[in-house]
Parts: sequence; structure tokens; C-alpha cells
Amino acid sequence: MPLSSGPMGGPVLIVGSVAYDSVRTPFGEAEEVLGGAASYASVSASFYCPVRLVGVVGEDFAYDHVAQLAHRDIDLAGLKRLPGKTFRWAGYYEYDLNQAHTTATHLNVFERFQPELPDNYRDTPYVFLANINPELQLSVLDQMRRPKLVACDTMNYWIEGSREALLRVLARCDVALMNDAEARQLCGKPNLIAAGREILNYGPGVVIIKKGEHGSIMMSHDSYFSAPGYPLEEVRDPTGAGDTFAGGLIGYLARTGETDDAGVRRAIVTGSVMASFVVEDFSLRRLFRLAPEEIAERYHEIAAMTRFGSL
Amino acid sequence: MPLSSGPMGGPVLIVGSVAYDSVRTPFGEAEEVLGGAASYASVSASFYCPVRLVGVVGEDFAYDHVAQLAHRDIDLAGLKRLPGKTFRWAGYYEYDLNQAHTTATHLNVFERFQPELPDNYRDTPYVFLANINPELQLSVLDQMRRPKLVACDTMNYWIEGSREALLRVLARCDVALMNDAEARQLCGKPNLIAAGREILNYGPGVVIIKKGEHGSIMMSHDSYFSAPGYPLEEVRDPTGAGDTFAGGLIGYLARTGETDDAGVRRAIVTGSVMASFVVEDFSLRRLFRLAPEEIAERYHEIAAMTRFGSL
Repeated sequence: MPLSSGPMGGPVLIVGSVAYDSVRTPFGEAEEVLGGAASYASVSASFYCPVRLVGVVGEDFAYDHVAQLAHRDIDLAGLKRLPGKTFRWAGYYEYDLNQAHTTATHLNVFERFQPELPDNYRDTPYVFLANINPELQLSVLDQMRRPKLVACDTMNYWIEGSREALLRVLARCDVALMNDAEARQLCGKPNLIAAGREILNYGPGVVIIKKGEHGSIMMSHDSYFSAPGYPLEEVRDPTGAGDTFAGGLIGYLARTGETDDAGVRRAIVTGSVMASFVVEDFSLRRLFRLAPEEIAERYHEIAAMTRFGSL
Repeated sequence: MPLSSGPMGGPVLIVGSVAYDSVRTPFGEAEEVLGGAASYASVSASFYCPVRLVGVVGEDFAYDHVAQLAHRDIDLAGLKRLPGKTFRWAGYYEYDLNQAHTTATHLNVFERFQPELPDNYRDTPYVFLANINPELQLSVLDQMRRPKLVACDTMNYWIEGSREALLRVLARCDVALMNDAEARQLCGKPNLIAAGREILNYGPGVVIIKKGEHGSIMMSHDSYFSAPGYPLEEVRDPTGAGDTFAGGLIGYLARTGETDDAGVRRAIVTGSVMASFVVEDFSLRRLFRLAPEEIAERYHEIAAMTRFGSL
């Protein structure tokens, strides 16, 4: 299906943080730029289908940013504006771009985030629960009416501090996303394949483990898929790569409605492509100037770089 | 071509260490077992073509081990026996199996290793220079008459201490193999793709960067290939994985004679398959009980786990 024919399928509901980030990497820096998991995932998904964003911002959230999101066919009826300031994150990366060093986290209004879904959101067929308190992820699921597919992400903080709630989320998800360190931590197993196998036992039918520059792996009870990282000589800012991956994944699934093994594989490669673009510049800049033809070209490149003949 | 039809093509010349290893991992231990880069690479290559091994052992090298190697159609005319003891290495791995911790290295007779090629070895068409002093690698190349393809490996020790000689080796090789940390170190570049590009500028037409459980990448001036790691839930002993990979690679290339991009890709997957077996047990045990049908099966599995449809 040609991407250039514009979004169809879906929509997708995306719940998570909207933030202002200040980021420094060996290749530059950016101050108070648009960030947050829900921003990255929503803009990424918006290349494939309409998006409904559920999140919270403060009174300082700029109209420009509202306009940028709305311009991407992202429904902001679920983006609440509360008295106070928008979530701030500040951090830096050294040459190991897999490792973010946080210098400041000010939750601000995000501390009071209680996702409340507008009534028409409750029937959204595809849901991505970005990394937030698993209790809030559960509250979103409680508000949904029989979604077709639910994907979730998480992080070390919740694995340590809210394990029970997180396991209840996983039991209600179809697709669990996390990075390799998180998968190992969640399962207390150094072997990633054994960890993936255990996560499947927690409930989701599909586990996707993100490995940064090394790509990602997907495991289900009867399939295993390995997607390479797209080879980039210059990564300017890795912030949001995982969320952009997830947005591309859920967006592609929603667009096609093909949630079988073959569909999930294509969705993973699509997510990898989206992530490979977002890291080329700070914040969401690269996504805001991304053309559908570029996506298709990089997808084909990944196909070419994994192809080999039979013995 | 059915592997079960037995070796043909080649032969391959393999130069490197033959050692007795003592290894401990979280999954067991083994004392004074057959090891060394040349042992692993030779046995691996022997599944594909006849092998000529150039190395040195001490008077304590067991007839049993000679017989085991000879039984695999490995020509030992180039394996010199010197007064003294065989090279000993002792080390352990913790749960991060990518990281070997060395507790003892006794070079013994290996310290006096001066590769001298039997005259009939000098026309061998395929050569693998395992990780040894680059001055010795050069001396082997000086003794060869127009080999068809030369592959080399190296390690951090030579990158630090014998950089100039190593660059002269690379300039005379067709295929450079190293792991990700070594590639970064050699080029002083944190980005692996940029490092690979620079190594190509040193001379080899193909660079293969091994990434342990994350598989490997191949770069040439006009191609990029990413091979996944085979997913293993239990790795008993990672020792020799890289050398086994290299042996499978050069053996496959020698067997088929196809050294173009498509042939190299198949050779890399073959190397990955061989490495995935060797780590399932200590020393070379798994290779000594490996059947060609198992190789073919795992090769097909890797094809299945990297397959995805077009957009």
C-alpha cells in the first residue's frame, strides 16, 4: 500500500508524557524542545493513521507545538492543560549513545496526570501505552471498550518499584515492548532469549525487545524475528528513538489491520525506519520534515541489507 | 550444494594458536581442554573443505588431540612440535558472556612461534590469519604465492602495540574480521559504521564486525549486510566463537569459490551457524559431534527469522 496515499485505518490511542527536553550530545544541544514519549510516538504513528493523544501539559505549553501536533492529524481532545508547568527533562549523552545521563527531571503537571479518556476515545481499536506508571496504564485499559490490540512500554523505575502493577498490565497487553536491559531486569535473567520467553508467560502474545543500534528482536510462542539497526554514521540525538519505534509499529499495525506474524514483522521494520530518522536530529525535527518516500526507501534498504541466499 | 556430500573446494590455510584452555562459566567448567584460535577455526572450516593448519605445540600435546584434528581432514604437516609446553590460557566468564576474564596466559612454546610453511602450503588459495602478532601474519603472507582470498583477525593487544604492522596486514587482506570494540579502538571512532568505513580505507574489500550475541555486520564499498545472532537460551562457553565463525566463513568461501557479495553473505551466515553450535558446550566438543544436517537446519532457521515482506 503506498504510504503517499495518506493515513487510513486506525485510529490509534497513545497515552504518555508530553515534555520539554534539554539535551546535549557530542554532536550539539537543544534547549526546551518538544519531547516526551507520547509526542514521539504520536508523530511517528501519524504517518500511518489518525492518532488520539492522551497526556497532560502545563500552561506554558506553546501554541506552536499544539499546532505542529494538530497539523499531523493528531487529535488533542485528550491532551489536558493543567495549571503549572509542563514536564521538563534534561540530560546528556556521551559517545555511548545508548546511555542517557539525566541531570534533571521536573515532573511538574505530569505528577498529577490521571488519564481521562474522552468518551469517543474509548472505542479506539489500537492502543499504545507509553512508559508511565503502570497503575495509570491499567486505568486507561479500564476505560477502553474491547480494543483490537494493546501495546505497552515500561522502564526500570516501574520494574523496580511497581512490579505487581506492571505484571497486571503485561497480562492485558498483546504486544510488550521494552529494551534489553529492562527485559533482563524484569526477569532476573541475563540471557535475553530466556527473558523474552518468560515475558511471554506473563501474558502478551508478542514481546519486542529493543536493542538500540543492534536493532530489535521479536518473540512469540511460535515465531522469532530479528530486525537489524539501520546503519547510521551520525546519530545526533537518540532521545525518543524507542517511542518513535513504537509509534511506527502501532501506526503501521493500525493502518493495515494485519496483526499476524507477517504483519508484525513489517510493523517492526517500519518502527525501525521511523526510529532511524528521528535520531538524525534533535527533538522531533526530522519527523516534521520526513517524506513518505524516504520511509519507503529506507524500508527497502533494510530489506536489501538482510537478504541472503539459501545454502 | 548438499553439505553431506563431503568437503570439496579449498583447501584453506589457517595460521594461529593451538592451546590448552581452562575455562569456567556460570554453567560449568573445563580443565586443560583443546583450544586456540587455529583449532577452533580449523575444525569449523573442516566441515566445508580440506584444511592446512600452521601452528605450534609443545611436547605435552596429546596424541588424542592430534588424532581428533587429523580425523577432520586437517593436514597437520604445518603443526610444529617444539621442546616445552603447549600454550595455556585460563579464564572465566560471568553472566555477561561477551566479556572474558583472563586469569593466566602462559605462552610457552607459542612465544617462539615462527610460522614456516611447508612448500606445498604456499599455493593454498584461501588463507585465514587468526589473531597472532601481525609481524607473523605478514611473514605468512610473504611465504604465500598469490592466494585467492586472505582473511585476517586481530585483537586489542596488537591494535595498541603493533598498529603499524597491523595496518600493513590489513592492506594485504581481502576480508578483515574483528569485534565491535576492536573496530572502535582501531579507528578511534565510537560509531561502528564510521569505523567500518575507515577500515575499508585501510585496504580490505570486506570488513566483518562481530558483535557477539547481536550477530555481525559486513561492509564493503558498495554493500552492507546485517546477520543476526542465533538466539540461544543457553550458552555454556563462548570461548572460540569468533574463531569458529571465521573458520566457517573461510571454509564456505573456499568450498564454493563464490567470493562475490552474495557468496560472502552466505558465508557469514554459515559462520554464525558454526559459532552458534560451538558455544553450546566447552572446547570443541559440540563441533566434534556436529552433523551437516544440523548446520543446514540452523541456516534455514536464520533465514526464517530475518524474513519480512515488502511494504
